[in-house]
Amino acid sequence: MSDAEFKPTPGETDGPVPKAVVSRLSLYLRQLQQGLLGGQTTISSKELGRLLGFTDAQVRKDLAYFGHFGYPGIGYKCEELISAVKRILGTDQTWPVALVGLGNLGRALIGYKGFAQRGFTIVAAFDNDPGVVAAGPIDGLPLYHLDNLPEVARQNRIRLGMIAVPGPAAQSVADRLVAVGVEGILNFAPVTIKLPEGVSQVGVDLAIELEQLTFSVVNRGATT
Amino acid sequence: MSDAEFKPTPGETDGPVPKAVVSRLSLYLRQLQQGLLGGQTTISSKELGRLLGFTDAQVRKDLAYFGHFGYPGIGYKCEELISAVKRILGTDQTWPVALVGLGNLGRALIGYKGFAQRGFTIVAAFDNDPGVVAAGPIDGLPLYHLDNLPEVARQNRIRLGMIAVPGPAAQSVADRLVAVGVEGILNFAPVTIKLPEGVSQVGVDLAIELEQLTFSVVNRGATT
Repeated sequence: MSDAEFKPTPGETDGPVPKAVVSRLSLYLRQLQQGLLGGQTTISSKELGRLLGFTDAQVRKDLAYFGHFGYPGIGYKCEELISAVKRILGTDQTWPVALVGLGNLGRALIGYKGFAQRGFTIVAAFDNDPGVVAAGPIDGLPLYHLDNLPEVARQNRIRLGMIAVPGPAAQSVADRLVAVGVEGILNFAPVTIKLPEGVSQVGVDLAIELEQLTFSVVNRGATT
Repeated sequence: MSDAEFKPTPGETDGPVPKAVVSRLSLYLRQLQQGLLGGQTTISSKELGRLLGFTDAQVRKDLAYFGHFGYPGIGYKCEELISAVKRILGTDQTWPVALVGLGNLGRALIGYKGFAQRGFTIVAAFDNDPGVVAAGPIDGLPLYHLDNLPEVARQNRIRLGMIAVPGPAAQSVADRLVAVGVEGILNFAPVTIKLPEGVSQVGVDLAIELEQLTFSVVNRGATT
């Protein structure tokens, strides 16, 4: 196997990295952390792949985008690879998140256990309905009127924004988040938003996920 | 350009299709439908790519997995390609969906406009809390106790299930959906569920989406 010498170069990629590779990094991270919790200190690319349903070649190829992490005859050292993958994903840093939109989706996102588990903290939530804001904190999270975004963002060093407003309001909310300096936006509104160079976005279009599912049903076995 | 003769073979792929390709099919479909609404009857791979931020080579390569859809000197005929992509994605069919879990996330999914726009209809929603069910329909959608899943699924010819329950309950809900014959499951619970061969699943892990975002922030320009 090609788990050669350890030479991490996280965050320094030679070329564009396919999005699917980045998604798999998240899966590797989860599996490694689960293994470490269970007392596992090293793991081979074969075992890591097997646990997730990938080949060992896939695991090695994915990680090779970012450096050389394995040791001959040992495989990966779990703790070391966890640190490296977190650095690569940027989750070794703190990312205070502002949520905009307090409808059902916004409330679901506040209650979503998966974020805190991965180091993301929604530190403030915003709506443009004074009644919603006046109803007070949700699960201890302070609510603000959207007009207060500038000072709240500054005080809380907000770095990411999460948009959970209806489609027609999404662009103007995005503009306001950009204006207060967010570095990235996770957009749940079913519309495409335009952002300036230097601000990243990931759109979550749930209908696309359903289309992936129906594709997989009608073309059973046809996806990698 | 290699938009050669029209020879659609949707649903018959020669080999595994990368998931990213299937995601892009959804984006192509949206763009084509938007163009058609605006009166556009044909489009080149270059224009389609440009509108979405992809190269024309990428567009042609993605579609080539499924057949030959272009006409020399013309490009793609919008209506024809829309039909073909819908067939490939399986969205030329009706997919009655059962939603399980009526917390904030479930309620957000009921209100999510993007599903109906793409032909997915949540026809029944389930919870195991009799009080929640007794509170009656949400936006006209009938609510049922999970124990009634078998008869409701049969009456409504349910084909897909959407799981929006807490993690610890997800596997048992999945088992019940499988038992009533669903063909695919969209899983929002932040856990991995095991399904038998022949039942597809797509997991939506919102923390992974956030990790993709932070990766993109810390490795600006590094993804394709």
